[in-house]
Amino acid sequence: MTAKTITEKILSEKSGRDVTAGAYVEAIVDSMVTHDVTGPLAIEVFEDVTDEKSELPTADDIVFTLDHHAPADGVEAANNHNILREFAAEYGTHQYEINDGICHQVMIEEGFVEPGQLVIGADSHSTTYGGLGAFGTGVGSTDLGTTFATGELWFRVPETIRFEVQGDLPDGVYAKDLILKFIGDVGFDGATYKTAEYAGSAIRELPIHQRLVLANMAIEMGGKAGIVEPDERVETFLEDQATLDVSVDPDLASDDDATYEATYTYEGSDLAPQVSKPSNPENAVDVDDVVGTGIDQVFVGTCTNGRYEDIRVVADVLAGEQVAPGTRLIVVPASKSVYEKCLETGVLETLVEAGATFQSAGCGACAGYHQGVLGDDDVCLATANRNFPGREGSMDSQVYLGSPATAGATALYGEITDPRDLETTRYGDHVSADVGVVR
Amino acid sequence: MTAKTITEKILSEKSGRDVTAGAYVEAIVDSMVTHDVTGPLAIEVFEDVTDEKSELPTADDIVFTLDHHAPADGVEAANNHNILREFAAEYGTHQYEINDGICHQVMIEEGFVEPGQLVIGADSHSTTYGGLGAFGTGVGSTDLGTTFATGELWFRVPETIRFEVQGDLPDGVYAKDLILKFIGDVGFDGATYKTAEYAGSAIRELPIHQRLVLANMAIEMGGKAGIVEPDERVETFLEDQATLDVSVDPDLASDDDATYEATYTYEGSDLAPQVSKPSNPENAVDVDDVVGTGIDQVFVGTCTNGRYEDIRVVADVLAGEQVAPGTRLIVVPASKSVYEKCLETGVLETLVEAGATFQSAGCGACAGYHQGVLGDDDVCLATANRNFPGREGSMDSQVYLGSPATAGATALYGEITDPRDLETTRYGDHVSADVGVVR
Repeated sequence: MTAKTITEKILSEKSGRDVTAGAYVEAIVDSMVTHDVTGPLAIEVFEDVTDEKSELPTADDIVFTLDHHAPADGVEAANNHNILREFAAEYGTHQYEINDGICHQVMIEEGFVEPGQLVIGADSHSTTYGGLGAFGTGVGSTDLGTTFATGELWFRVPETIRFEVQGDLPDGVYAKDLILKFIGDVGFDGATYKTAEYAGSAIRELPIHQRLVLANMAIEMGGKAGIVEPDERVETFLEDQATLDVSVDPDLASDDDATYEATYTYEGSDLAPQVSKPSNPENAVDVDDVVGTGIDQVFVGTCTNGRYEDIRVVADVLAGEQVAPGTRLIVVPASKSVYEKCLETGVLETLVEAGATFQSAGCGACAGYHQGVLGDDDVCLATANRNFPGREGSMDSQVYLGSPATAGATALYGEITDPRDLETTRYGDHVSADVGVVR
Repeated sequence: MTAKTITEKILSEKSGRDVTAGAYVEAIVDSMVTHDVTGPLAIEVFEDVTDEKSELPTADDIVFTLDHHAPADGVEAANNHNILREFAAEYGTHQYEINDGICHQVMIEEGFVEPGQLVIGADSHSTTYGGLGAFGTGVGSTDLGTTFATGELWFRVPETIRFEVQGDLPDGVYAKDLILKFIGDVGFDGATYKTAEYAGSAIRELPIHQRLVLANMAIEMGGKAGIVEPDERVETFLEDQATLDVSVDPDLASDDDATYEATYTYEGSDLAPQVSKPSNPENAVDVDDVVGTGIDQVFVGTCTNGRYEDIRVVADVLAGEQVAPGTRLIVVPASKSVYEKCLETGVLETLVEAGATFQSAGCGACAGYHQGVLGDDDVCLATANRNFPGREGSMDSQVYLGSPATAGATALYGEITDPRDLETTRYGDHVSADVGVVR
């Protein structure tokens, strides 16, 4: 057997062939997801390509979420919600409701993704599933609609670019900082149609919610997929979050002599918090370079950094403090279960007391639809994945991307602030009420 | 002195003349409010009519809120927010932020309204202030912009129509039911340019938050104002809510022999919960007539019924229960302080556990902008004030209006439900977890 990357192994398994990068395969898809923006077109395509209108053998593998415009922010959005609800009622696909959350978070929490699986979504951030060791990738509505009917889809097996981080990450440096750094180094198209594989001892130490961040943003360098070798942390995570009893196959890992198109190596201790300047994720710089930039709005949420652990970091920074005057903090949890955990643990209360505007679960302002759209000249720091011109609103607005820790510190001071300057040690450590910048 | 209505007394006082209905007066305005929809035009008008660009003697009487599109649901909304923020920063007007709440609720909570005052707002529901015994009325942006400059505005002193309710209200009947009944009886234009004055022993017994409902919806029968004679309950309310120390002038009441254009009298015990059918508030019927109508969405909020006591009624009904499958419950508190009280008291948690979608404070879906817009064929029951065609979304959607109790019961069963059929006694009594319909 040829030595293989984890990508080649998964696509070999799912196609029933022994393939490596460059091969074209027809592969069995384990799960598929679509949402209120891409779903209606997928349904239209499905109805065009199928004669049988009342049966859908893949129904149990299909998930619909209402997340981009939830609650409905216009009549078209509301009608699109109803198109999905009606299809799900007719065919028995899985239907999630407004406030259930963002497609990718719902897929993971509800157990639709397992290591080694092939999962597609009509959403570009379907690369997220690689955080669990699945091959996840975004497809168009047309491809998805035909896959409803067939359960299979063609793929060109991608080459892999390896990002290896060894050692320990410094305080204040998170997966978000790593991925911004990687994107900055290879460029926004530096991994086009490749798998970005994240490895090394620093990656292995990352909790799953941070691995998901790495996989999620693979698309921001053009990646077909992003993946972290699954391990027992994935097993524990899936048991806790999705009550799934999964045993990770020890062979579900890239072989030592697998072929990589390129390898980038980093020493963890060299890394600093990163901020991507407007208006491209590839504009990543050390936070030092932009410290002091005035910020009108801080947006915490999205499929990248809208998980409980992310929101908690922000709450830890702001506990007993107030968001800076003249700065708005908008928090949108990635799922209903994240919302509920924020409520149970007091994180929601802490943030509301600090002056945050807390919304129901969904994509929030990420795509510029609602819940905090930016006006001309508004400057935002977001935990989101993209900051292309106009992404969160006006073409004349500016969006900086950063980690939840950077977001919390920035909300506190109303200007971009280095989270290492806060009296906090690491993610997850509770910061005392007397947070102070020591710079 | 001629016998006078409370309306005539206030406008006499504010104009410095002894006037009765039909007179035209120039009156001193105590407070003015505008929001993100009407504010930018008011500012434009002000800037047209004034030469002095840097001074505004009325600044301390002017309140800006961001409520209709908050958080911003589009670039235009975000730009409008910034127009208000910039004007407030320049002139020193009072600026409230996204999530601070709906203009009318903010005005009341923040102490901008006292009994006997003349308060205008560039919003039709500025009649709300009559619940505190003020003369409150809505004006256009043009009138408001000129009043910024002059502090005065002309009025034709309105005739008064008196709605008198004696005795006790039955369980399950609230101010919202009364006002829907009144509007049904006189028609949507039945009080055009009149004051609707609410009196009688049943009205006197109403807590302030319910009096505000009566005043708020005066405009739905064309009223220039709606008013309830102020009493010591207003004093207590203002002390609690706005830390205002106010003594109500005993003469701030309609004289016994004041002239009314018409008087409608009701016996409290005869009244039933009311629902206004699509698509006019005047289509009020006893809830019995529409019980069983299937409902896709229940919307609790607005300047009419988005107060803590309203949301608590819904939580009392739903405590330990689940919103009916296939029905969405969207809750939008009228202000940040309402939100915080819902959070402190567990009302938010109860509703979220029951499946509600809880948003930040503002107007929500009331005007069809965001946070739960209706699609074609969607059927909604709302605690709002208006159900004109397309008001909450599609021209093909349908909106029923009802009280929070009716909304809670309807959310529980997914169809319009008579709140008297629940095992609850009255507003404010906590319903046990085993709510059951006894019909």
